[in-house]
Amino acid sequence: MADGRVYNFSAGPSAMPLEVLEEVQREMVNYKGSGMSVMEMSHRSKEFMAIAAEAEKNLRDIFAVPSDYKVLMLQGGATLQFSSVVLNMLGSKSKADYLVTGQWGEKAHKECNKYGTGQLACNTKSSKFTTIPAKAEWKLDPEAAFVHYCANETVNGVEFSYTPDVGSVPLVADMSSNFCSKPIEVGKHAYIYAGIQKNLGPAGMAVGFLRPDFADGSKEMKICPTYCSFKTTGDNGSMYNTPACFTLYVMGEYLKYTKKVGGLSYWAEQSDKKSGLLYGTIDGSDGFYQCPVEKSARSRMNVPFTIKGGDEALEKKFLDEAKKHKLYTLAGHRSVGGCRASLYNGMPLEGVAALTDFMKSFMDENRK
Amino acid sequence: MADGRVYNFSAGPSAMPLEVLEEVQREMVNYKGSGMSVMEMSHRSKEFMAIAAEAEKNLRDIFAVPSDYKVLMLQGGATLQFSSVVLNMLGSKSKADYLVTGQWGEKAHKECNKYGTGQLACNTKSSKFTTIPAKAEWKLDPEAAFVHYCANETVNGVEFSYTPDVGSVPLVADMSSNFCSKPIEVGKHAYIYAGIQKNLGPAGMAVGFLRPDFADGSKEMKICPTYCSFKTTGDNGSMYNTPACFTLYVMGEYLKYTKKVGGLSYWAEQSDKKSGLLYGTIDGSDGFYQCPVEKSARSRMNVPFTIKGGDEALEKKFLDEAKKHKLYTLAGHRSVGGCRASLYNGMPLEGVAALTDFMKSFMDENRK
Repeated sequence: MADGRVYNFSAGPSAMPLEVLEEVQREMVNYKGSGMSVMEMSHRSKEFMAIAAEAEKNLRDIFAVPSDYKVLMLQGGATLQFSSVVLNMLGSKSKADYLVTGQWGEKAHKECNKYGTGQLACNTKSSKFTTIPAKAEWKLDPEAAFVHYCANETVNGVEFSYTPDVGSVPLVADMSSNFCSKPIEVGKHAYIYAGIQKNLGPAGMAVGFLRPDFADGSKEMKICPTYCSFKTTGDNGSMYNTPACFTLYVMGEYLKYTKKVGGLSYWAEQSDKKSGLLYGTIDGSDGFYQCPVEKSARSRMNVPFTIKGGDEALEKKFLDEAKKHKLYTLAGHRSVGGCRASLYNGMPLEGVAALTDFMKSFMDENRK
Repeated sequence: MADGRVYNFSAGPSAMPLEVLEEVQREMVNYKGSGMSVMEMSHRSKEFMAIAAEAEKNLRDIFAVPSDYKVLMLQGGATLQFSSVVLNMLGSKSKADYLVTGQWGEKAHKECNKYGTGQLACNTKSSKFTTIPAKAEWKLDPEAAFVHYCANETVNGVEFSYTPDVGSVPLVADMSSNFCSKPIEVGKHAYIYAGIQKNLGPAGMAVGFLRPDFADGSKEMKICPTYCSFKTTGDNGSMYNTPACFTLYVMGEYLKYTKKVGGLSYWAEQSDKKSGLLYGTIDGSDGFYQCPVEKSARSRMNVPFTIKGGDEALEKKFLDEAKKHKLYTLAGHRSVGGCRASLYNGMPLEGVAALTDFMKSFMDENRK
């Protein structure tokens, strides 16, 4: 670990590869001899257009995006996408299906009802968002404009390990929190969107992969803000207005790093190793640590756990002592409490090993 | 000028004070001993909450924001604000007035018609956006929900030198391109918004100052995307969802620097000196250089000019030779051509002096 750096298990914004940060640091005041910082560049300049083009090309290569899909780069995060999806994809239909398996899917569903009817194809709230029901239990409406799911729920630690099969209804995915952590089946989706602040950069930008039949504006509502128009964004190469240039540039550096280390299969392997190590420690603790999520639905990205069945005093002690071992940001989301370790790409395996070592010694000292 | 740096006259994103860039560079990998980059911090962390709180406090101090106004920090730039203004401020009324004095005001006006009726209180398009009509010529509707104006038009180089008096109708200003360049009368406005990528930071964030009677949601349309809701943003301290954390932090550094150098009156003085020098050179060139904008409406931020009445070959030569003197990004907006020098806060007086020196020698060599 670099001097003074800590292991940061934040659920997002989150740890980034040190190499990426150092490259950004080196280029801060004078980008590749251009005489200026990327922060200072006109988004129409030759230099910045090249940065944006390379980032898009690397997104297409790394994610194997079908060539007829549009790549969108947008501000406003997943929250604005919750609206944009409906405003651009509902078309002449009035309803859409939502697979709700956590708090983010719930928010996306709620937003739909501003513009149409968001139908609950499934909702695991009553079991505290700890499962993903089998397909046989989903109530899918063949007349729905689309089916929306959240591929990974950060608060609850629930992740789809497969692409949902919803027949011919367009499939929409919020992949904010597991984007760039494994290969994905872009072609099975009509739209994939993801805030980049987990596995691919700083906060302030979302990426979208859009099937061409939703890029021509034919399904766009008249009340859709111009900024949110998929057609406007797509037709203008995500530069209808000034993009989040510096954030886009940092994402570009992260993409280059991703290529260098081996692409999505590398991140997938790392994620499996890291989450396997942590879940193994939890499951091997004889109940001292517990993860509430059903095994088949467990997230490789966000691992929520309780200590001694939710002993708050002990959890506080755990968080305090963890910091002394340079293990930071391990508190659970304010809405659920407990602990949570997020294992995004920026978290090295050695950081998770340091965490599990600490967890074992903490358990030995506090089991009683 | 620092080694290898150039004078960058970009209309935005644009030059930033070197001191700000260097501070950001220093803190990139480990922010003040936190063990992490600001890019990696949870937006709910103690460290980041302190950064955001200090930025808001400095905005309030520097701009003398009335204490009951909300300070909003948002993504999506002015373009998304064009929609948000209408979605949050039209209320039970159906129409709003727009003073259109350039291309940005025109876009804002157009957006209004998605949700109501945007009325043209004035429109200088027929005279190519080179004037600001006197108040007597404005057609103001006392029943309008608000009056919108763009305080500075970057493409056309037109700037209001005063706060428009519109009586009791709420006044809304897009100050994207002259924000933080002079003291402003916040209390005379119901809402001021500004992308920060001109005088206050990198692209990817807008700041808003909102009068409390528009912060309670009472005038919000039901179709307003949650992300765009002034009430939701205000009630949650601009952290309903993950903000553009790093961009916000850089703005915070720029604000601290602004305080250090003397606040808005310092930037106003600098802007007057810089634009005075450049306009003086243009006006003293005996028509070799010409600025199409009426003197009383000339912008201190963006100075468009032609050479020999629009000699395109000579303008190209000018731009090419300027680069040899480290004078960059002087082409006019693609929609109007010619040349344009933008003189935001990040451009030092010596940069403008270097430009005017070059302009004089170029004139001497090419006057014939």
